[in-house]
Parts: sequence; C-alpha cells; structure tokens
Amino acid sequence: MTEVDYCVVGAGFAGLTAALRLKQAGHSVSVLEARDRIGGRTFTVTRDDGVWIDRGGAWIGPGQDRVYALMNEFGVAEYKQHNDGDAMMIVDGKKHRYGGKLPWTMSPWAVANLGIVLLTVEKMCKSLPREAPWEAKRAAEWDRTSLGDWLETNVMSKPAREMLDMALAGPYTCAAAEVSLLWVLLQMGSAGGPNFVISGKGGAQDARPVGGMGAIYRPMAAQLGDALQLSQPVHQISQDADGVTVRSDYLAVRAQRVVVAIPMALADSIRYEPALPVDRAFLNQRMPSGAVVKISVVYDEPFWRADGLSGQSAAPGSPATLTIDACTDTAIPGIMCVITEGPAARKLAQVDDAERRALVISELVDRFGNKASAPVEFHEQNWTHDRYSGGGMISHTPTGVLTEFGYTLRPPSGRIHWAGTESSATMCGWVDGAIRSGERAAAEVMAAHTAAAVT
Amino acid sequence: MTEVDYCVVGAGFAGLTAALRLKQAGHSVSVLEARDRIGGRTFTVTRDDGVWIDRGGAWIGPGQDRVYALMNEFGVAEYKQHNDGDAMMIVDGKKHRYGGKLPWTMSPWAVANLGIVLLTVEKMCKSLPREAPWEAKRAAEWDRTSLGDWLETNVMSKPAREMLDMALAGPYTCAAAEVSLLWVLLQMGSAGGPNFVISGKGGAQDARPVGGMGAIYRPMAAQLGDALQLSQPVHQISQDADGVTVRSDYLAVRAQRVVVAIPMALADSIRYEPALPVDRAFLNQRMPSGAVVKISVVYDEPFWRADGLSGQSAAPGSPATLTIDACTDTAIPGIMCVITEGPAARKLAQVDDAERRALVISELVDRFGNKASAPVEFHEQNWTHDRYSGGGMISHTPTGVLTEFGYTLRPPSGRIHWAGTESSATMCGWVDGAIRSGERAAAEVMAAHTAAAVT
Repeated sequence: MTEVDYCVVGAGFAGLTAALRLKQAGHSVSVLEARDRIGGRTFTVTRDDGVWIDRGGAWIGPGQDRVYALMNEFGVAEYKQHNDGDAMMIVDGKKHRYGGKLPWTMSPWAVANLGIVLLTVEKMCKSLPREAPWEAKRAAEWDRTSLGDWLETNVMSKPAREMLDMALAGPYTCAAAEVSLLWVLLQMGSAGGPNFVISGKGGAQDARPVGGMGAIYRPMAAQLGDALQLSQPVHQISQDADGVTVRSDYLAVRAQRVVVAIPMALADSIRYEPALPVDRAFLNQRMPSGAVVKISVVYDEPFWRADGLSGQSAAPGSPATLTIDACTDTAIPGIMCVITEGPAARKLAQVDDAERRALVISELVDRFGNKASAPVEFHEQNWTHDRYSGGGMISHTPTGVLTEFGYTLRPPSGRIHWAGTESSATMCGWVDGAIRSGERAAAEVMAAHTAAAVT
Repeated sequence: MTEVDYCVVGAGFAGLTAALRLKQAGHSVSVLEARDRIGGRTFTVTRDDGVWIDRGGAWIGPGQDRVYALMNEFGVAEYKQHNDGDAMMIVDGKKHRYGGKLPWTMSPWAVANLGIVLLTVEKMCKSLPREAPWEAKRAAEWDRTSLGDWLETNVMSKPAREMLDMALAGPYTCAAAEVSLLWVLLQMGSAGGPNFVISGKGGAQDARPVGGMGAIYRPMAAQLGDALQLSQPVHQISQDADGVTVRSDYLAVRAQRVVVAIPMALADSIRYEPALPVDRAFLNQRMPSGAVVKISVVYDEPFWRADGLSGQSAAPGSPATLTIDACTDTAIPGIMCVITEGPAARKLAQVDDAERRALVISELVDRFGNKASAPVEFHEQNWTHDRYSGGGMISHTPTGVLTEFGYTLRPPSGRIHWAGTESSATMCGWVDGAIRSGERAAAEVMAAHTAAAVT
C-alpha cells in the first residue's frame, strides 16, 4: 500500500496537469495510468531524426490559453498549420476545388442554407449559460432533439445537410442521430461556437506545438518522476471518512482524495465503494464514445503544396472522410493525415490491414494524384478499438442526458474529483479543456485540503 | 480451472433457462452468478408462513407462452391479478376515480387525443419487422426521434401527454427524452403493441405465478445443482480457436462456448479478449438502464377492496407513481405494491429511509384512506442502486443506436452467445422474453456443437 497525499487516475493531459499542479504545490502524488504509455487520447511518436507524428489530438488554436500556458512553462514553440492552396470537397463522387472556408461550387441555395444554419447554431451556442447549459431556457427542447433530427428538420438542401452532418456530428465520431442537440451546443459553445470548430486558421486547427503534443506531455511526466506508474488499470475506488483507497490489478494507493481523469466512456468501468450518487453513476453509464481511425501517410515531400492544394479535403462517408496536411514545422517529409469518423470508421475497421491501406491510398490518389500512391510510411491508429479510450475522440451525451444528469459533470462525489476534457466548461473536447479540467480538479482538492486544515 | 462443455454467465431467467436446456440435452454446464442469490431482476422473498413478496418482476400475461411452459414443467399454477373495483388517477393533485382502462374523467378532448396517439403507436408497432425493426421503412426517422420529442409534437393535451409519458416512458424508467422512439416501438411491438403493456386484464399484468417468480426459478436452480455458483462476478472472457475461458474473481471456467445472460447495461463491464467486434462493443456501451424503486407495503388485509377500489392508481411524478394490488392468491395479508420510476425514483432514492417511508405512506393514505397509515411490513427494493442490475427494470437504446448497432443484439460474437430479455424479439423486456432468449442461446450453442461434430 503506497501512501500519498493525493492519487490521480489517468495520465492524459487532464491527469498529468492535475498531478503536476498538486506536486508543484508541495503535495505528494501517485498517478496510476492503465496504458503502457502516457498522453491518453494524444499520442506522439517521434522518429530518431526528430520527425514526429501525432497519432491522436494534435491541433491548437486561439483562446486555448491553458495549453499555451503549459507550452510556455516547458518552452514549447508553436507553428502555424499549413493552409495555403485550395481545399477540396467530394460530393456524390464529384470533386469540387475551392478556396476559403466553404465550397462555393455548391449551388447558391445550398450555400445560403448552410450559412443560415451555421449562424443559427452560432446564436444558439452563444445563448447558453456556459457553466450550466442544461439550465438554458430552451434546454429541454434542445436536449430531447437529436442532432440528426434537427438537421433533417432545418436543412433543406441535401449537399448542405451532408456537409453539416460531417461538420457538426463529425467531432463526436458517431451518427448525427446519436447525439443530443444540446450536447453539440454545449461542446461547440464551449469554444465560442461552430465557427471555431470548422475553421483552420484562427480556429481549432490554427497551429501545432513544435515536437507534437509529446513535447508538452513528456516534460510534465518527467517532473512527476516515479510518482507516475504505467500499466495500472484501476478497477476499484473506495472512500471512507478518512480518505480513499485506489486499487489497480497490482497496486493499492491510500490518499486523502483522488482525481479521476479518464474518458467518460470508461468512468463506469471502475467499481466505486460506496456506490456513487445515482445521478453521477447514471451519467457515467450514459456517455459513450465513437469510432475514429487516424492514419498518417508519410511521403518524401508534401507534393500537394506544389500543386496549389492545401491538403485539406472532405468526402462525407468515404474511407478517407477528412484529410489535412500534418507536416512538422520543417515541412519535410510530407505527412498527410487522414481522419475517418463514425459509421465510415467502423466500416473501415472491419476490413483487413492490406485492404484498408489500399482503400485509403486509392482515395488519396483520386484527390491528390499519382504521387500519393507510393508513401514511405503508413501509421494507423484505430482509436475505436482502444480499450483505455473507450472509443474515439470524445464522449457525447445522447438525448435527455444533459438535462437529467449534466449537473453532475463537475462537482466532486465526496473525495472523488472528476477531471477530463468532457468536464470542462471551456474548450470542452480539446486538449486545452483537458488541461483546464486538471487545473480545476487540483484547485478543488487543495481547497478541500485547506478547509480541512482550518476545521 | 473447472472444465465443462458450456459456461453460462448470469442466473436470472435467461441464464437459468439456457443452462437448464443445455443440461437437459446432456451437456455439462457451469453457471456463474455475480449476486449471492439467483433470479436476476426477479427476486421473491418468502415468509415462513408461505406468504411471498416479489421484489422485482412479478406479472405474466397471455402470449407469454414460454413462461407458462416453464410453469407447466415445474407444476406452478397461475392466479389472476385482482382487478375488481375502481382505479385512480391523480393529476395536478386532483384525484379521479374511474372504471375501465382510461380515466374518463379527463376532458373528451384529452381522451380523444390519448386514444388517437395510442392507436397510432399500435399501428407503428405492427408495421415493424419484428426480428429487425431497424430495417423498417421509417426506421431512420423513428430512431433519430426521442420519445419525448415525439410526444411533444403529437400530443396536444397536457393531461394526455402526462399520462402517455408515464405509460410509454415508464417501462424504461427514465425520462422520455432519453429513449429512442424506435426502441419504444420495438419493445412494445414485441408484445403486439402498447395495448398489451397498459392493460391489466389480458395484458402484461394479467396474472401471477402462485408462489411468485421464485416458485419457477428455484426448481430450475435445484435441477442445476452444484453447476450453479453464486458470488462470482465475471470480469473476463477470453476466446481462442478451441474454446473460451471465463474468469470471476475466484474461479476460472474452461468451456467450448459461453452464454452471456446479464443486463445490457452490464455487458460492457466484462473484459473480452480479443476485443468484441466494434459494433457489438459499442452496443454494449450504449444501452443504459433507468431508476426504479419497488416497495411492497403489507397490511393485515387488502382493505381497499372493500372500499370498491382495485388498488391501482397512477400519479405521474409523485413519490408513488404507480400502485397495484400485489396480494398472494389467498388475498391475506393485504399487499400493496408501489412502483416509482425514472426521475421520481431518483429523487426518492436521495432521501433517507425514514423520510422515504413517510412520503410513500402519506401518498397511500391520500389515495386509500387512513387504514393505509399502519402497515405491518414495509419491503423496499431500490433496483436503481443494484450493482448487478446496472439500474432499474430493463435497458433501453437512446436515439440512433438501433439503426447503427441493433443488428448485433442477437448474433453470437464467435464463441460468445448473447441472452437476456433485451435480446428477445418476442416479449422483449418481460420474464417471458428472458426465457425465450435463454432457449434461443441454448439452441444456438447446440447447433454450433452439432456443426462442429460434423466437420
């Protein structure tokens, strides 16, 4: 039995941040991580020559102040995402090449429809009380409506609907029918609205850390030293009047309080003694994750740039739903990132490795020409099947869940404090939100400590 | 390591039936049950004088042929539910006493609205292909719509909406906004339509087994003898080319195949090696349960009968949402069953025992008079907090889940066969459906056995 002041479960950005802030404040901590690596839903692989590939979360943008603060703390620079050149959209097998944010080759009617819907969503997002969207005036209405239902009712143009389905349901990597409209508003609203989500420059794909996400999380882990233990899946947390006992298959940690910083889709996999309050237990049971395959295809150089293409493309439903230039700051080698989400990702996960590779390369050749046919490396990360992510990208709430259980997202359950990007009222779903949630949880723990010392 | 032909996880009606049928066919079986008792979501407590109380599932009705077949097999008689006398409905604090199925004291407009909606649901139910509702012509539309949203759009009268909310969302013991309309149609359609669900006589509360559910499940367990092991929560199932290994905290069982017969809300709590196919894994992650408290209040005699009351009452949202006469076949003592579901049950679970008892008794006094104030026994079963049920009554699917993942409800995943009432295409959600699912799984296992013997 290890005895420490505080225990942290999970060594993604939320858990690492919570542990780091607690340690920096002079407390002893123990971090238990289920995987054999740190980083959680970010995962940077670095080659011997310094070239890195982000196999998970990778991008940062304006307003994400806490990730920039961490980068400052550890001397990590940013570089801007390559955006020069035309983007591409494939609808009904037809390629449209366009500059700017929207594919202006769509009919004026479709573009108008798209614009109006995005403005409507932006307005709805801004109308939410950010800390408690479930208390919004129209919360009940928005929460009993699925995004799929809402799009069906509000978007008349088929191409506009396909694009909005991808843009608005894509982040949850599942079918639009699975997601509560109120969750979409909460998540996008936490970054100011959909404009941030769908924008490259000035938005969610504005920049990247030099060295990838690992350049941030590795020095965090180094500061934690041997407080951090890998391959320790936690299966039980017991709390009593004096503290908590956290058990993995091999270890037991005794602490005053514990921060649980794992994906919502996995929070239910821990046995809590005594049982959690019913509304929090039900929330843990009700936030599934989706399906996403992220593939990084490495070429000698980013040949698409010379052809006047940004590397960004979108083909709803195809085996390569989204592509985006993912080169390092030196632009050599050429790295093309393919992100396939939701139902398309599940389909892609069902074919064998060779066929999947062939399908993806063939899509790239179709969009970027023959040079795409001969990559030098092919890195594939199937987050869908990742046991310790519980599925891909982030968790979402189905209809009815936020208005019934949303209020339990953040408050501690006794000595158990909840972190993880899904619990952040700002930048929910991004690395920045994960960091904010870790800092909030650490602050809660220390406030409870101070309160206990006074009494 | 115990070696048997087949392993069964769970000793509710689904698991007991599967094991019994396999044993009767001459195979060796091992049944691992997590609880320290059998019966699953049924639970009969029998006093020394033979009076029994069903703390879980209790009623049976016409069309539930497989539960009647089991009763025949073990010589268990049925007796009819007491229905004589008036029922009661409480709306806005006002009591309406009525005969028949519907509270005719509602305005004619409300009654008409109610009737039309029920007929519409009945028609929609009958239009579904029962084995694959997700293939219905309008499946996508019905699955992206929550029951809450549909009621809001289709029911104009407030009292009619409140009653329909209780009648249609009640069985899933959660808010109407949480449930996919397609799930409601699947579940109610599996019994022919909502008419069966809301009917006492000739419907889902038509009769009960003499001796309670335990009179059926106890002799089943007796036939299984020491093949049945209690207090064995299974946490891992591994399959390979030759068989499966099923591990609880204390035991390992090696078998050719395994039948998993636990609530859907818990299927995700087992670690499967190798990982399940993604669509089945995601289904397991996406079928939460609800909240339900079932209280049996025992009096010297069923005094309400003498007052011309059936004992049935409904008060949407109150601490005693539903009441129903739950006497044994001898009608002495008087047993009044109080069922509180969904949000009201969660609220009721948050107060302490004394307050909860006071709240419930006060509701009974209000409805049935002063004689209700002095019960001789008070039995309370909070299924919401039941670790090995994963919540109350049955699991449901949120929007979008059936059309994406519903097709994985029944087919085996390699050597893992799925049982449990939620997997039954007929009488889904009832004890009868659980029995059907156990018989189907046993037949699958034996067919696979025969196929293997031939090759």
